[in-house]
Amino acid sequence: MSGFKGRDVISILDFTRGDLEELFDLADEVRLKGVKGRPLEGRIMALAFFEPSTRTRLSFEAAMKRLGGETIGFTSEEATSVAKGESFVDTIRMLDSYSDIIVVRHRYDGAARLAAEVAENPVINAGDGKQHHPTQAMLDIYTIRVLEGGVDGLTIGVLGDLKYGRAASSFILALTHYKPKQVYLISPPQLRARREVLEEARNRGLNYREVENLEDVIHELDILYVTRIQKERIPDPEEYERVKGSYRVTLEMIERKAKKSLKILHPLPKVDEIDPRVDTTHYAAYYTQAKLGIPLRTALLLKILA
Amino acid sequence: MSGFKGRDVISILDFTRGDLEELFDLADEVRLKGVKGRPLEGRIMALAFFEPSTRTRLSFEAAMKRLGGETIGFTSEEATSVAKGESFVDTIRMLDSYSDIIVVRHRYDGAARLAAEVAENPVINAGDGKQHHPTQAMLDIYTIRVLEGGVDGLTIGVLGDLKYGRAASSFILALTHYKPKQVYLISPPQLRARREVLEEARNRGLNYREVENLEDVIHELDILYVTRIQKERIPDPEEYERVKGSYRVTLEMIERKAKKSLKILHPLPKVDEIDPRVDTTHYAAYYTQAKLGIPLRTALLLKILA
Amino acid sequence: MSGFKGRDVISILDFTRGDLEELFDLADEVRLKGVKGRPLEGRIMALAFFEPSTRTRLSFEAAMKRLGGETIGFTSEEATSVAKGESFVDTIRMLDSYSDIIVVRHRYDGAARLAAEVAENPVINAGDGKQHHPTQAMLDIYTIRVLEGGVDGLTIGVLGDLKYGRAASSFILALTHYKPKQVYLISPPQLRARREVLEEARNRGLNYREVENLEDVIHELDILYVTRIQKERIPDPEEYERVKGSYRVTLEMIERKAKKSLKILHPLPKVDEIDPRVDTTHYAAYYTQAKLGIPLRTALLLKILA
Repeated sequence: MSGFKGRDVISILDFTRGDLEELFDLADEVRLKGVKGRPLEGRIMALAFFEPSTRTRLSFEAAMKRLGGETIGFTSEEATSVAKGESFVDTIRMLDSYSDIIVVRHRYDGAARLAAEVAENPVINAGDGKQHHPTQAMLDIYTIRVLEGGVDGLTIGVLGDLKYGRAASSFILALTHYKPKQVYLISPPQLRARREVLEEARNRGLNYREVENLEDVIHELDILYVTRIQKERIPDPEEYERVKGSYRVTLEMIERKAKKSLKILHPLPKVDEIDPRVDTTHYAAYYTQAKLGIPLRTALLLKILA
Repeated sequence: MSGFKGRDVISILDFTRGDLEELFDLADEVRLKGVKGRPLEGRIMALAFFEPSTRTRLSFEAAMKRLGGETIGFTSEEATSVAKGESFVDTIRMLDSYSDIIVVRHRYDGAARLAAEVAENPVINAGDGKQHHPTQAMLDIYTIRVLEGGVDGLTIGVLGDLKYGRAASSFILALTHYKPKQVYLISPPQLRARREVLEEARNRGLNYREVENLEDVIHELDILYVTRIQKERIPDPEEYERVKGSYRVTLEMIERKAKKSLKILHPLPKVDEIDPRVDTTHYAAYYTQAKLGIPLRTALLLKILA
Repeated sequence: MSGFKGRDVISILDFTRGDLEELFDLADEVRLKGVKGRPLEGRIMALAFFEPSTRTRLSFEAAMKRLGGETIGFTSEEATSVAKGESFVDTIRMLDSYSDIIVVRHRYDGAARLAAEVAENPVINAGDGKQHHPTQAMLDIYTIRVLEGGVDGLTIGVLGDLKYGRAASSFILALTHYKPKQVYLISPPQLRARREVLEEARNRGLNYREVENLEDVIHELDILYVTRIQKERIPDPEEYERVKGSYRVTLEMIERKAKKSLKILHPLPKVDEIDPRVDTTHYAAYYTQAKLGIPLRTALLLKILA
């Protein structure tokens, strides 16, 4: 476990394909055989959620508690001394002296990296700014491994807000560790992936193409990764309605055009970007994906702390 | 324990008198002998409180933790991805995959039943809509059993907002499992018990009568169950003040008219519907009732999960 | 441990110097050797934070959890039945019946004392009103013991809002248990220590002097205890800026005038009353002080509950 022991988890690019596969092997073990005893008894995780989160926070908490560990922390900025004007760095220093590991979510890019510089104990980025959400990306790749055996050779679409959505960016960066046959980045022009993400993808040899219409490529896809288009990203309401409509994944479109073996992923929560009738079909893999968050994060905590 | 194992707790009517007595027997054991070891170690309870609650939530948490289990969850809707537009059903699905049991509170009737349909693990209704709060009703009946040996043969008054108050409705429904001598439903005309509750009571043979004045019946009562009349239920402020005044339980009225053995219950929190001077008299049973919430809910969790 | 067992912690004046030294001896043991096993397994701490807090709350939580205990509670008034109009006393009664110890923070003077009168289990004051924050004062004195071997014979400055700041008042009261050579109370005229605090200090023989300028006395100090001056305390904005500026601790002033061995304490959170360049110098003892909150509160919980 040397590759993870005591390590910070800030960006998916800090890890190698080998690291990830080692992590996924342990996640498989946790998933299939469970965890024996209380390996993290007496250890404390600090949750520093400066931005609200349900899924990421609760899955980290559940994983820690199943391992016999405990959590402290806060779930929104208002409830903290940050509201009294305390600096981010002082808040992190405090948490660092009260706990064994810090899980940070923050709206600003670079917050988790800064926390890791200040803290002596490991820091896990639970999403900061527009770009990094490494444990989500690990989960996404792990889900594909569980469903399809691996990422290599697959044709993968990433749909939605590729500019501001940190889950989408992290997923694209994670794909650069692998050799998918083809990656389609599907978004309206205003929400195309950021230049720094595309450059990284190009430099690392990812075979990607930017397209505007899902309908043009859906028949090729093995995996469709859907993300939400948030209203506030597109100021003009008419434009928003148009965009939203044309990026909605309907059951009709899937049944008419997609491969029978297509799997749809989504970091969740979803609002109406996927037709709810899809939820109960074999295409929907997002509930499985959410469920895999527990073994994946359990394995990660074991790797870092045990 | 077959009657409870893995079971949902949605309405008090889903249980038989036999189920309840079996539960109360275990609650007695927990209360008098304590719990040995950590029978729920490694198990996780998800608290899905879409509406705030202190007493119900904290007694569930304390019971779970005393049993060696753990909790995750949220205590208000704003703090969740529901605020981002996620559906109730998706939120429940997530919690279901992160935990072993879900405790739900929600302002809408039927929310707990819907959660139970979606979730694979057991769901406990911690109060939904205007009608159901089954663990409160269990606690109320259990309190009467502890104080009086049982409900059969007693004369019982239920006072206050019988229309919108879910604790009062659940208590009335719970009484239909027993044979009280007489039940008085005491409320202003605007806040009489709902038709569906009264029909259920009638069909199940409960000997009840609706009255408007506490003073007319207080001398007969063995148990007086008081609930709060909320300001927002009576739009006209003058009318509200009049109603509130005439449904206030004063020490004078009790000392002048009630049996010396009268016991007053209240689901709490109370505001000013009971004269605070009553708090320290032998009539006040509501603090005992609150305290019994721990053994009762401990027993319930053991029945369902152990 | 007879002096603490089952005891309330309301004011630092309720304890003797002997009590404190006994507590600090155990804190040393916890700090240097750790805690064996889970001495508080099955015990529950109720957090009754009617006012928000991060540091005090999280250090109590972390201490309790490291000892194998558990916590329940609330972290702001809005989230509780107090918001529905429940009395403080009823809320405390409820928590008392659900837990083994209550930690209270409240904006009103006397709230913790009232809670202790109502509750059967021990109550710890985590700060109430303008005057009492006994566990902070214990921590402050303990920090000085760790850094300097003890308080006797030292020259100590207390800077900032001595009128409304409960940490400063409690620290001054705590000093009366010891024999510092000299205590300087340094504040603007509007924010001088309250008469009752000064009377107590005088009656208990504390050698103190009130001064207005830090610069006049800084060269004498072994310890400088800094507290925040809150904007709302000084209604006139110009006056506030002037006051704030002249009570700011700068690196220049320290390097020019202070003893090389000066240690600066602060209850934290700090905003801008200390130049951030001081943070990384050997003068800054406030992060050490924050860290010592864990062994100190761990020792206190052990003394009271074990």
